[in-house]
Amino acid sequence: MQIRTDLALESHEICKESAKRDDEIRGVETIVEEDDGVTLTRVMVSDEIGAKILGKPIGAYVTIEAHDLEYDTQIYEKTCEILSEEIRKMVNLTDDSVILVVGLGNDHITPDALGPYTVDRLMVTHHMKKHMPEQLDKGIRSVCAIAPGVLGTTGMETVDIVKGVVDELKPDVVIAVDALASRSLSRMGSTIQIANTGISPGAGVGNRRDGLNEQTLGVKVIAVGVPTVVDAATVAIDSIDMAVKSEDTAAIKEQLYDNMGTLMVTPKNIDLIIERASKTVANGINLALHENMTFSQIEEYVG
Amino acid sequence: MQIRTDLALESHEICKESAKRDDEIRGVETIVEEDDGVTLTRVMVSDEIGAKILGKPIGAYVTIEAHDLEYDTQIYEKTCEILSEEIRKMVNLTDDSVILVVGLGNDHITPDALGPYTVDRLMVTHHMKKHMPEQLDKGIRSVCAIAPGVLGTTGMETVDIVKGVVDELKPDVVIAVDALASRSLSRMGSTIQIANTGISPGAGVGNRRDGLNEQTLGVKVIAVGVPTVVDAATVAIDSIDMAVKSEDTAAIKEQLYDNMGTLMVTPKNIDLIIERASKTVANGINLALHENMTFSQIEEYVG
Amino acid sequence: MQIRTDLALESHEICKESAKRDDEIRGVETIVEEDDGVTLTRVMVSDEIGAKILGKPIGAYVTIEAHDLEYDTQIYEKTCEILSEEIRKMVNLTDDSVILVVGLGNDHITPDALGPYTVDRLMVTHHMKKHMPEQLDKGIRSVCAIAPGVLGTTGMETVDIVKGVVDELKPDVVIAVDALASRSLSRMGSTIQIANTGISPGAGVGNRRDGLNEQTLGVKVIAVGVPTVVDAATVAIDSIDMAVKSEDTAAIKEQLYDNMGTLMVTPKNIDLIIERASKTVANGINLALHENMTFSQIEEYVG
Amino acid sequence: MQIRTDLALESHEICKESAKRDDEIRGVETIVEEDDGVTLTRVMVSDEIGAKILGKPIGAYVTIEAHDLEYDTQIYEKTCEILSEEIRKMVNLTDDSVILVVGLGNDHITPDALGPYTVDRLMVTHHMKKHMPEQLDKGIRSVCAIAPGVLGTTGMETVDIVKGVVDELKPDVVIAVDALASRSLSRMGSTIQIANTGISPGAGVGNRRDGLNEQTLGVKVIAVGVPTVVDAATVAIDSIDMAVKSEDTAAIKEQLYDNMGTLMVTPKNIDLIIERASKTVANGINLALHENMTFSQIEEYVG
Repeated sequence: MQIRTDLALESHEICKESAKRDDEIRGVETIVEEDDGVTLTRVMVSDEIGAKILGKPIGAYVTIEAHDLEYDTQIYEKTCEILSEEIRKMVNLTDDSVILVVGLGNDHITPDALGPYTVDRLMVTHHMKKHMPEQLDKGIRSVCAIAPGVLGTTGMETVDIVKGVVDELKPDVVIAVDALASRSLSRMGSTIQIANTGISPGAGVGNRRDGLNEQTLGVKVIAVGVPTVVDAATVAIDSIDMAVKSEDTAAIKEQLYDNMGTLMVTPKNIDLIIERASKTVANGINLALHENMTFSQIEEYVG
Repeated sequence: MQIRTDLALESHEICKESAKRDDEIRGVETIVEEDDGVTLTRVMVSDEIGAKILGKPIGAYVTIEAHDLEYDTQIYEKTCEILSEEIRKMVNLTDDSVILVVGLGNDHITPDALGPYTVDRLMVTHHMKKHMPEQLDKGIRSVCAIAPGVLGTTGMETVDIVKGVVDELKPDVVIAVDALASRSLSRMGSTIQIANTGISPGAGVGNRRDGLNEQTLGVKVIAVGVPTVVDAATVAIDSIDMAVKSEDTAAIKEQLYDNMGTLMVTPKNIDLIIERASKTVANGINLALHENMTFSQIEEYVG
Repeated sequence: MQIRTDLALESHEICKESAKRDDEIRGVETIVEEDDGVTLTRVMVSDEIGAKILGKPIGAYVTIEAHDLEYDTQIYEKTCEILSEEIRKMVNLTDDSVILVVGLGNDHITPDALGPYTVDRLMVTHHMKKHMPEQLDKGIRSVCAIAPGVLGTTGMETVDIVKGVVDELKPDVVIAVDALASRSLSRMGSTIQIANTGISPGAGVGNRRDGLNEQTLGVKVIAVGVPTVVDAATVAIDSIDMAVKSEDTAAIKEQLYDNMGTLMVTPKNIDLIIERASKTVANGINLALHENMTFSQIEEYVG
Repeated sequence: MQIRTDLALESHEICKESAKRDDEIRGVETIVEEDDGVTLTRVMVSDEIGAKILGKPIGAYVTIEAHDLEYDTQIYEKTCEILSEEIRKMVNLTDDSVILVVGLGNDHITPDALGPYTVDRLMVTHHMKKHMPEQLDKGIRSVCAIAPGVLGTTGMETVDIVKGVVDELKPDVVIAVDALASRSLSRMGSTIQIANTGISPGAGVGNRRDGLNEQTLGVKVIAVGVPTVVDAATVAIDSIDMAVKSEDTAAIKEQLYDNMGTLMVTPKNIDLIIERASKTVANGINLALHENMTFSQIEEYVG
């Protein structure tokens, strides 16, 4: 009965909570840097013990938290720049590096669409670098990008598709972008994790079946993710824990209400749910209003 | 510190829970009909006392619950037909009735898009009825439809827009379709409420500021809604209540986990959150990979 | 057998061509201003004779042409500013003016979607001006916006919907935004017409049935439009005219090929065509590959 | 100065026109079958001479024409079934065949989106066949599908991506779906071509740079395509040819007007054009109405 999170930062918090002590967990180091509206936390998992405790492979996990990202243009610009620096620290790029960006997830289910949407906005240059390098400014690197889709829509493991493309392209590094699960609703869209370990099996909003990492792809993989969903059980269990620790459940409820009162939750496949629900309501109304039409005539009309 | 719900059925449940007794609340009657995969509940609020207790105007509220709506085509067809019958019972239609369907909500925020999406699928006929009635089969009624938008994007109260159109068109009845809030995640997309009271102020996913009903529009209003969001505080408070009533919090957690384990929650404005988050990640990667580009050059590129 | 155009500029060109003389047509004056990548043409129709010849009501029609609008950010910014000045010249705004922007057209058919898309990007303030004026900077005016839809999807004449809203809101001016037809493919998306006459019946990509102007709405109407479609017959007829005037058809073909060689054309309802075609191809493949599935099982699956 | 078409049927027509004779071209055979609203034309290119004349590789090209596809549900069902039979004739499927469907094109440019949209509607089963074959009915084959994107958005030749996936998956056959260019506006969306030759370099709406065929992929490739664009020069040149052949240009114009009068054309990148145009118009209006806002403040607001 575990709390579901893809953030090393949160795994670390959870371990500390259950360990009931505030000091460091063996094999895991954390450093926190504050910078005017943006918090940077580095979680370093240095050995197998730390990896086992945290449930995350050995490696570095950098978390950028910027709660006003959505409303404050300066915070937005700063966050882009910090993210850029942290990626560069993890990848050794030369002028001739070829980089493949992989946008994981399903672009028809909004909370899972971070990867494909990111790929849509990349400055992709590999083809120009190859065919008209003289037209590109110095410092423009050779970038490719794909959004390989998900198991349910391709019929193939994502790792197999990406492996095929990597074998053909032979990039120096893969940057895998994915939507993540977090335990906290307040982190939705305002936290970014960069990891030099790639993506583990079972991670991501859609629980990718196989990992995308150096073992599976044969090339270094940097993972960049943003939380977009919370496990509903996690919200509820966190509340019970609070209620049990304290005796004053009324106060807890009030606090919960203050924190969450304006937040509405909705299932992650809400796009499909709305699609179907609107069809049902429309056809109910159509049938009600047009008396001699049969169900299949109406269905045909709606198309 | 109230539980937010737009379903009369749930208001009634909540009243009974807090009343600690199982029998009828004064001024409210309920009838439940089961029919092979579909449950119909009629809540009749018959006087001001019932209305005050339930927080819903005097009138009839019919709830159709069909948990397999999304997967089972037969249940889908049956649900459309039951909805159609219930609408007809509430509206006295003649062959010459003119009906205006109003799809409330914001079509750019998926959980609020039920109304506009429904309007897209209606069989709209008013213009044909007027200009080429001979081409329409008997039984086809005169139907108009609008999706008036929401306060934040139009700058006008929705009721003012609809009032203007009603005054011009003079329909016999308005059917208002809206996304609703429920206390239960399991009702998302699988429950439909039809009410002969119209829509009350503050109802709906976007908390419509003014009601759409006979008082405000001067014409009978039938409301059709489907729950698409749950108040996050509601989920948490429900859990605490369970934990406090029982002593066995471990068992409760396990049960919660069993019920909700696979359900992920996501904020209702997830579409906008993903939009912004993907922009941030893309630009972070763009800046990281293309060294001599400035932030504004990148922004311009992304467009 | 007329050439279809909504641009006064082009109507004027066509008149001059058929008049076989280059001087002014009676009752119509034109002024051309060039400014570094942007051309401004003012066509003033001053009397009924001019109006009849041009087929446009008496009034002022300003055309902004900016061929590099799509690629050049400076041209884009300049065009926005010129458009802004021209609108202000046509409207007498005070600090207390209330403006209603109406986005005409169908947002599900891309070439007809200019109006609704524009409305999505407006800074709408009427509700804030009314409820929290102290939070708004000076100079922010009271702006409302609606996208009323089209006859085929609402069942109502657009003018009736807008009239209803105008009667309720009582704005000082209406700005109507619409996609236009032009005779020239090179003007698609790169030309803007502003007219102080409102919109005439039959204009726009969807041939709006009734006009939106001071007579129909009882309030001043400024029309802003951008060409997004060309009548296919117009392209063909223009070619024949060229071929007949000159004897050297080979040279004309070559020139046509040079001018249009890379331009592909597609019908205006391409969105619907693609929708249906992809369904057909997918189901053909589905039926081919899965042998025991019937057509309706496949249809159901596709949903 | 060639007429651009991806349909073998049209290449054949054009050859016959320029050959000024009606009988067969050497190395090319055609058979026409009519069936109640649907026409089937088989063009067989049997040797290198025919291939050179037609500009199409040796192979079989089947064209299904169904002009009422969009409006008539029976024609739609029949077309799906004929397409299914023709695909099966070209592919030798066994119960254990693995099929990869490749949806070519850019899903953000509507006329180029046929491939990706088709992939969205396929019944994909490879993963189920592998992990839970007992749950699948007999006759369900192992199907995978990808939409690899286009050169401009991936930075990689599409053939390289598909080659990588084919090497990893080792399917028995590839079905490549693509939007096509035709010389005739009346064929948009109502004609389907199936070819056992795969896709040639330069074909498709986006002029795919490299072909997808047995030589490049090492596995049999069936191409399925639907015309969605017409070369603008083609429309014009066809008109001139008509005008020159006949003396009666007035009659030709009239006929053109009758045939094309209601058809509007729009460039293939209309989606991007509308995006930019609506931004320009919105910001022009924003600047006009809100006096103290700068261009960049407005830009930021629009986002």
